Amino acid sequence: METELSHQKQIASLIGPDLQRLLREVGDPELARELLEDFHPEDIADLLRELDSTDAAEILKALPDDVAGPIFERLEQPTQSVIVSILGPEEAAEIASEMAPDDRADLIEALPDEVGEQLLDALERVDPEAARETETLGRFEEGTAGALMTPDFLSVTPRKTVSEAIQMVRQKGGQAETVYYVFVTNDSRRLEGVVSLRDLLLAEAQASIAEVMTTRVISVQPETDQEEVARQMSKYDLLAMPVVDRYQTLVGVITADDIMDVLTEEGTEDAQKLGGMEALENSYFATSFGTFLRKRATWLVVLFIGEFFTGTALRGYDEVLGAIGSLAFYLPLLISAGGNSGSQSSTLIIRGMAVGDVKLSDWWRIAVRELGIGLAMGLILAAVSVGRVYMWGDKGLLALVVAISVTGIVVMGCVVGAMLPLLLRRLGLDPATSSAPFIASLVDVLGIVIYMQLAKMLLASAIQKGIELKAATGH
Amino acid sequence: METELSHQKQIASLIGPDLQRLLREVGDPELARELLEDFHPEDIADLLRELDSTDAAEILKALPDDVAGPIFERLEQPTQSVIVSILGPEEAAEIASEMAPDDRADLIEALPDEVGEQLLDALERVDPEAARETETLGRFEEGTAGALMTPDFLSVTPRKTVSEAIQMVRQKGGQAETVYYVFVTNDSRRLEGVVSLRDLLLAEAQASIAEVMTTRVISVQPETDQEEVARQMSKYDLLAMPVVDRYQTLVGVITADDIMDVLTEEGTEDAQKLGGMEALENSYFATSFGTFLRKRATWLVVLFIGEFFTGTALRGYDEVLGAIGSLAFYLPLLISAGGNSGSQSSTLIIRGMAVGDVKLSDWWRIAVRELGIGLAMGLILAAVSVGRVYMWGDKGLLALVVAISVTGIVVMGCVVGAMLPLLLRRLGLDPATSSAPFIASLVDVLGIVIYMQLAKMLLASAIQKGIELKAATGH
Repeated sequence: METELSHQKQIASLIGPDLQRLLREVGDPELARELLEDFHPEDIADLLRELDSTDAAEILKALPDDVAGPIFERLEQPTQSVIVSILGPEEAAEIASEMAPDDRADLIEALPDEVGEQLLDALERVDPEAARETETLGRFEEGTAGALMTPDFLSVTPRKTVSEAIQMVRQKGGQAETVYYVFVTNDSRRLEGVVSLRDLLLAEAQASIAEVMTTRVISVQPETDQEEVARQMSKYDLLAMPVVDRYQTLVGVITADDIMDVLTEEGTEDAQKLGGMEALENSYFATSFGTFLRKRATWLVVLFIGEFFTGTALRGYDEVLGAIGSLAFYLPLLISAGGNSGSQSSTLIIRGMAVGDVKLSDWWRIAVRELGIGLAMGLILAAVSVGRVYMWGDKGLLALVVAISVTGIVVMGCVVGAMLPLLLRRLGLDPATSSAPFIASLVDVLGIVIYMQLAKMLLASAIQKGIELKAATGH
Repeated sequence: METELSHQKQIASLIGPDLQRLLREVGDPELARELLEDFHPEDIADLLRELDSTDAAEILKALPDDVAGPIFERLEQPTQSVIVSILGPEEAAEIASEMAPDDRADLIEALPDEVGEQLLDALERVDPEAARETETLGRFEEGTAGALMTPDFLSVTPRKTVSEAIQMVRQKGGQAETVYYVFVTNDSRRLEGVVSLRDLLLAEAQASIAEVMTTRVISVQPETDQEEVARQMSKYDLLAMPVVDRYQTLVGVITADDIMDVLTEEGTEDAQKLGGMEALENSYFATSFGTFLRKRATWLVVLFIGEFFTGTALRGYDEVLGAIGSLAFYLPLLISAGGNSGSQSSTLIIRGMAVGDVKLSDWWRIAVRELGIGLAMGLILAAVSVGRVYMWGDKGLLALVVAISVTGIVVMGCVVGAMLPLLLRRLGLDPATSSAPFIASLVDVLGIVIYMQLAKMLLASAIQKGIELKAATGH
């Protein structure tokens, strides 16, 4: 639906071609700056995404570096890498010096080692401080607080006055990524408190920072998982989160806009893992065919091999299946009921753990609840299935086998689907990644065993007749 | 793992019991205020969550209203409803008058009609302005920008000077939900621009607002879906988003902390829908057994009925299945390969649409891509399956049937899984909700038809032999 395209997107596609031509023809970077002044870097990045990389590189080169930096940092990593190789290290370093420090560190990280080093060397010549920052941030693993944080924050000592602090915001606020919190540190940079810009403005000008600051500061370590950072910030409604090392030294700050990206990303990653594949790092179209194939085919093969056991289980009931042909007709139906109830439960538990609603220690309450819900849902499906069995003209004992099976299978699906993610988490594995294949094959195999075993017990005489018949024909 | 419990949670459980006792015994609300001053309302809410509702209500009642409000608004809606009924409308209105306007409107909305009206009447007496705001916000549907926004924002006219604007922030900043953006409106409240507090502090004190404001403001309408608001805010790195009506009148502002909650919520909802159930409104444990059963059982029954067609399809190949018993052993394996590849594709497309990476107009590129990826993955699985067929001692033509089937099934799974969500979106339906049952049953039924039809064609002579055998025995 067209209404979905954002207003901005429409503007971009309307003025896109003109702007592209203009930017390419414009010789004067300062004129280009004026032209672009009223546009959000994100919108310019949108325009560049529509161009091929050579054209995009040319436009970025024509722009002043402080305009090009914020545009370039918004492009996706594969595009960035190509543009860096077109521009060469010297030109790229000029633009990189104007990127946000965390995005710059990500870029260097994503580049092939040699290219990354050349860029870092060039950056060292253009902007030694930026190069140092990048090296520091680059030490932290992607997905941790350290890789998200920016070292450009504002801090004061507790002895300063409110008006001195406001003066400092006025002087240094242009460079800092966030000015809405001022962090209070002692002379050895130990984090002692925080004061919001709002509180600074509302306070007495001559009051000391020590009087107005909050000392109960929530902080994270550089190693903290970004998902946990997002959870804390959204729980406490924070616009910025300080990152401290083990000596409580303030080393960086994570801002809310980065966390919005993390939350979107984590939601997508969880969905992809639950959908039975490895999480992609980039968007659908920005992912190459090879990466795509690797991330999807690997899990598909693992799931496929897991399902081999369904065949093994069925072979164990060769005689039962052979004697009563119509048993096979209900097989996909019963298996899918187990799979569906299992996937409901595992989704609830995995996502519940991700957002912090469900904890490992709740396992007992969860087991009881899933047992109850499984029994209730199983009985409902049993009633529905009895109707179906009669409609197809199979009845009597077969209806009973199907009804009891579906109840047992749904109970089993709910309990296994809920307990396995908890068990995997207990073992230190990521439940979102590892659950799918285990649950799918376990639930399917157990479902088959329940169904076949029940048939074997309840339909013994019919099966016996079938076997004798086969024996008589020498088959 | 214990490391997962947040630091704050540990504090809460350590001091919890003492604090609870203290709060209950404390007679003086102002003493209670001092005791709680250093705690985040979220942490106090955590403590209350551990208590039964009567105790929680008693503590809230003992606290000053402006302390109780921010704590109460953080509790989940079922708990809030119970506490309101314990406190009665008069007491509840006192606390409600200190809640954030959007949370207050949500509370009234969630209460049974009669209780909600009583509370609103009581609120009218305590704080007429809050009551009016609540009624205005209550008119917007949950899940839209209107229901998320707060009417407590700061605005100035463009004729004011920077120093007048800062003065205004100082005076009114205490009430506003965000002070970090000041919105610029003309005399009839039409939105004309925005200026960040950072820009105000960095600008000349005597400059006019018209000179320093940005006129290119991104805004949404009250009817805009909250997911779209989140997408815009995270795309443009905004900490606050203005909401305007059709006359461009500024009616409210949405803040980043609400959007962090929306992003988490939408991720969970998408996961739950993809997991084959209706999205829950509350967390796992806050959802009642009845609601739980309704939201899960409904979809489970729909999925179950959809799967009936697998039985119909199998019955159509009664003779084929009866003649070659080992065909049934591969059935769950092949069906699951289709289901898994379909669920990978549908997850990618549904989540891609949710975050804005994938658009309806891309359908052709997606179809080509999924065809390619499906073929590649299908051939890999075919190779794996041939090995399996030989291991089980079935071989020759049966291996060929299984290999070709799995290739066809995976291609079909990828294409159907990717195209159906796009089609449903085109028809104006929510693809996350409606895809699961359609895709599951369609892919399973088509998978059975592909497998059985191939078997019928390639194994014709073996089947014929089987049928003759049965006829000879009079079966």
